[in-house]
Amino acid sequence: MAFCALIMAGGTGTRLWPVSRRHRPKQSLKLVGDRTMFEHAVDRIAPLFQPEHILVVAGSDHVPGLSQQAPGLPPENFIVEPMGRGTAPAIGLGAIHLHRRDPDAVMAVLTADHFIADVEHFRSVLSASEEIARQGYLVTLGIEPSAPSTGYGYIQQGNLLRTVDGFEVFHVERFTEKPTEETALQMVESGEYTWNSGMFVWHGERILEEFQAQMPDFRVQLSEIESALGTNSYEPTLDRVWQRVTKQSIDYGVMEGAEEVAVIPVDIGWSDVGSWGSLAELLARMGRRDDRGNVVVGKHVGLDTNDSLIFGNQGNQRLIATIGLHDMIIVDAGDAILVCPLDHEQEVRDLVHRLEREDMKGYL
Amino acid sequence: MAFCALIMAGGTGTRLWPVSRRHRPKQSLKLVGDRTMFEHAVDRIAPLFQPEHILVVAGSDHVPGLSQQAPGLPPENFIVEPMGRGTAPAIGLGAIHLHRRDPDAVMAVLTADHFIADVEHFRSVLSASEEIARQGYLVTLGIEPSAPSTGYGYIQQGNLLRTVDGFEVFHVERFTEKPTEETALQMVESGEYTWNSGMFVWHGERILEEFQAQMPDFRVQLSEIESALGTNSYEPTLDRVWQRVTKQSIDYGVMEGAEEVAVIPVDIGWSDVGSWGSLAELLARMGRRDDRGNVVVGKHVGLDTNDSLIFGNQGNQRLIATIGLHDMIIVDAGDAILVCPLDHEQEVRDLVHRLEREDMKGYL
Repeated sequence: MAFCALIMAGGTGTRLWPVSRRHRPKQSLKLVGDRTMFEHAVDRIAPLFQPEHILVVAGSDHVPGLSQQAPGLPPENFIVEPMGRGTAPAIGLGAIHLHRRDPDAVMAVLTADHFIADVEHFRSVLSASEEIARQGYLVTLGIEPSAPSTGYGYIQQGNLLRTVDGFEVFHVERFTEKPTEETALQMVESGEYTWNSGMFVWHGERILEEFQAQMPDFRVQLSEIESALGTNSYEPTLDRVWQRVTKQSIDYGVMEGAEEVAVIPVDIGWSDVGSWGSLAELLARMGRRDDRGNVVVGKHVGLDTNDSLIFGNQGNQRLIATIGLHDMIIVDAGDAILVCPLDHEQEVRDLVHRLEREDMKGYL
Repeated sequence: MAFCALIMAGGTGTRLWPVSRRHRPKQSLKLVGDRTMFEHAVDRIAPLFQPEHILVVAGSDHVPGLSQQAPGLPPENFIVEPMGRGTAPAIGLGAIHLHRRDPDAVMAVLTADHFIADVEHFRSVLSASEEIARQGYLVTLGIEPSAPSTGYGYIQQGNLLRTVDGFEVFHVERFTEKPTEETALQMVESGEYTWNSGMFVWHGERILEEFQAQMPDFRVQLSEIESALGTNSYEPTLDRVWQRVTKQSIDYGVMEGAEEVAVIPVDIGWSDVGSWGSLAELLARMGRRDDRGNVVVGKHVGLDTNDSLIFGNQGNQRLIATIGLHDMIIVDAGDAILVCPLDHEQEVRDLVHRLEREDMKGYL
């Protein structure tokens, strides 16, 4: 009857280049304070889960770095994904590990690279979610939207299912993909929608049944891996099977087609820290915006500089001096510097693709 | 009857911060190609002057660096100025040294930190100037204006005096200070004005007579130093006298009030390289502007970046990545980075003053 956490630590955070890199993914960065995103992710659930009940799914390149950041977790709790196949396969892999350990476990699928300001409230909603999950629901945490963002998927609430520990739990009417600006505005104004945070709570058997029903080929692949669990052939089996696994997100692969899905709308100071602008907003919310509207990390001298993010290098004391700028992002990552207006922040991804195309591997 | 050069190497080039620093002044920077500005200044006159006829006036801090850059010049030809007092005292100090060595010398006052593209033409006009100077004229080199700049003083031509080696030599009607935009436009359209380059050719006795007539107190101070020349008391005398010397420019102190002043208008590809925009223009003229209008020195990847100067650090391979920028200056000096729109380039000076006020000495 254990309550377990599965921390998804697979991404890299491309839009946080040049600080995020292949060998230095977003979850290993100290973007907020002196702790890495992954350290924050482990710290905030530590009071709720015993260390042996916290599992981490990550790529083999990243496991050594992550386990160094969380020395309290047993080494065998780091589950290596041979290559990234999207959230559905990563969750499936974690689920068979958990199911083998405890067939009655409820699992909370959490993220390694998001920030949550109100950790107590977060732990309360996780506890409430466990109770709903034990009743057979797939529970999703829906973030109460602070703006009509087009950067997230949305969850539409249906009827109120019940209230647990002060949290209202709704039937999910439907999951929607990232909307247009107009649609996002309508959704937020309706009060019926929350952002899809990518955090879920469900019973281990329940999610494996959903894979069986909605992704039957993948469920067969999982069974093949499952049968090798705890044997010498586990790794070769995983490597072999994973080659054939199709990329899929849990939203599209499972959630959108599932029955008995619940959402708990929460306001926990959540941020996906998905881009430099998003980090600036988060740091501003934490009181790091000065009276010129600038968010400054590191050494900066500015003349007539407003509403900008200045993110200095943490390894040295390099000074960033600016004159006559507004709404700008300046990031110094030591071996690379980014200068980009805030309203072009999404194009950082294109820049990284350009570096890939031009074979500038040293900067990836 | 020697023809001598006096290279004025006193300035620091504040507007080229963060590359220019107190201990690394503009004349010691490799802004154009692989040679420092001072090396360019010495190289281009080497065919015209014997090394012992090239004198350099500079602050004591800068002399070791400059003499390393010009190992062919005799060490005693570096004349130390105890502190900067403007161009008039620096020229006066050089003049008494030259006059002691050769009372009949004609001296060319040249700059250490300007760029001249057409060096052969430059040497020709220096030779022609010597001839005019031997007739008793104070000769100034006037730069044919390429734009109605408000950043330079202007020289108005009077009657044609004569032609020497194909160069037209005019009486100077008057020197004018930096004009307003409207005045600058009128002056350039009239065809009667050239920019004051700060380069002069005159007989050593002639300039000392002008100091006598127009800056008599300073001439007395010079005599006191002159009498100590070649003795052990030279340095203490210089230090003592220099404390009392009044700051003065040669334009205001001598040229504006002098008689028998000639100007030779020249087109020698001159640039004062006085600011980042000025360097960008110079490098563009030398073919260094790409098809997006960018002038790039170092490693750069840009998306939607136009008409900007990207000046990377020469000591490492740091990448400067930009998105959605235009008409921007980005300069990486290793321990400091500047980001500034081109039309704010003059404010770099204010930024340096701010660093002084805030006691950020490490960056000065």
